[in-house]
Amino acid sequence: MPYVNIRITREGATADQKAELIKGVTELLETVLNKNPATTVVTIDELETDNWGIGGESISVRRKRGH
Amino acid sequence: MPYVNIRITREGATADQKAELIKGVTELLETVLNKNPATTVVTIDELETDNWGIGGESISVRRKRGH
Amino acid sequence: MPYVNIRITREGATADQKAELIKGVTELLETVLNKNPATTVVTIDELETDNWGIGGESISVRRKRGH
Amino acid sequence: MPYVNIRITREGATADQKAELIKGVTELLETVLNKNPATTVVTIDELETDNWGIGGESISVRRKRGH
Amino acid sequence: MPYVNIRITREGATADQKAELIKGVTELLETVLNKNPATTVVTIDELETDNWGIGGESISVRRKRGH
Amino acid sequence: MPYVNIRITREGATADQKAELIKGVTELLETVLNKNPATTVVTIDELETDNWGIGGESISVRRKRGH
Repeated sequence: MPYVNIRITREGATADQKAELIKGVTELLETVLNKNPATTVVTIDELETDNWGIGGESISVRRKRGH
Repeated sequence: MPYVNIRITREGATADQKAELIKGVTELLETVLNKNPATTVVTIDELETDNWGIGGESISVRRKRGH
Repeated sequence: MPYVNIRITREGATADQKAELIKGVTELLETVLNKNPATTVVTIDELETDNWGIGGESISVRRKRGH
Repeated sequence: MPYVNIRITREGATADQKAELIKGVTELLETVLNKNPATTVVTIDELETDNWGIGGESISVRRKRGH
Repeated sequence: MPYVNIRITREGATADQKAELIKGVTELLETVLNKNPATTVVTIDELETDNWGIGGESISVRRKRGH
Repeated sequence: MPYVNIRITREGATADQKAELIKGVTELLETVLNKNPATTVVTIDELETDNWGIGGESISVRRKRGH
């Protein structure tokens, strides 16, 4: 019954990788807290790099600076 | 003054259907909790089926399996 | 399979009222979008009035001013 | 270490404007709460006007009515 | 730089279990998407069982019915 | 009409500081994007340090280590 929201920048995660995240998080909640995987919901939000900031600047700007 | 976020998979909800959700949720909060509809905010997020998982697998995979 | 998050101020909503919200939103999603109620998840967050702002001021301050 | 999520309608915010929001929120949290800007994360979600409701109707409908 | 929000019912998760969730999700994102663990943020929300619904009823009610 | 959610650890933010955050974010959105302050909603979530992780470990653990 848990709900997990994973937010990342949109930089090419494949369907297979997203499936791995869904599977991995669901298993983790079963292992650690004995949560029923059948009702564990996982959502993934992919945001443009202009729409994500850390350290006061956007990821777009950081990428240009070589981060 | 409530804020409601509705998350669904992106599978063809029309503008009219989304308007019905907004209206319905706003009325529900007025009926049940006497919340002022004028300041009730409702947002709807539509996610790709690759980005939504339940039971440890993505909706894309479930759809292929006939769910 | 939808996920709905309802956020309100903590001002005495009862367990029965919260149950009505859960039932009402789940039915709305079934009626409007034919979503399966069995996997519709609804969560309710109740926030202190100091932690909710509209119009640039907190609900606590607005309540004191007679809103 | 704070996390801030800003949700607006998708109506033409530029990369520069979004960078200003990221910078401004990060500075605000440093000024008010002495939070370390290096680990302050800001995300911006831009939603279609069909997917945002206030007062029981969508922004799309309100815009048509001249709001 | 990912942000992950885990939402569960408040039913006795210990600090150690929550630390395991934080560690596990952070490692998963590094393994699957090569995300830098240093800037991966994980938050955990624990909700009262009255405030969580599935299948149109609250977890409190389901627990009473023996679920 | 924007909605902003600020998430911080619960470590003593006062009502006045939270009011400053609400005011500051609302003004920022008006200045940068010309958003109407009357319908800008700001919510603040304060989480226990056990429930917040960065770098794969909880803030509680980091605080004990002297961070």
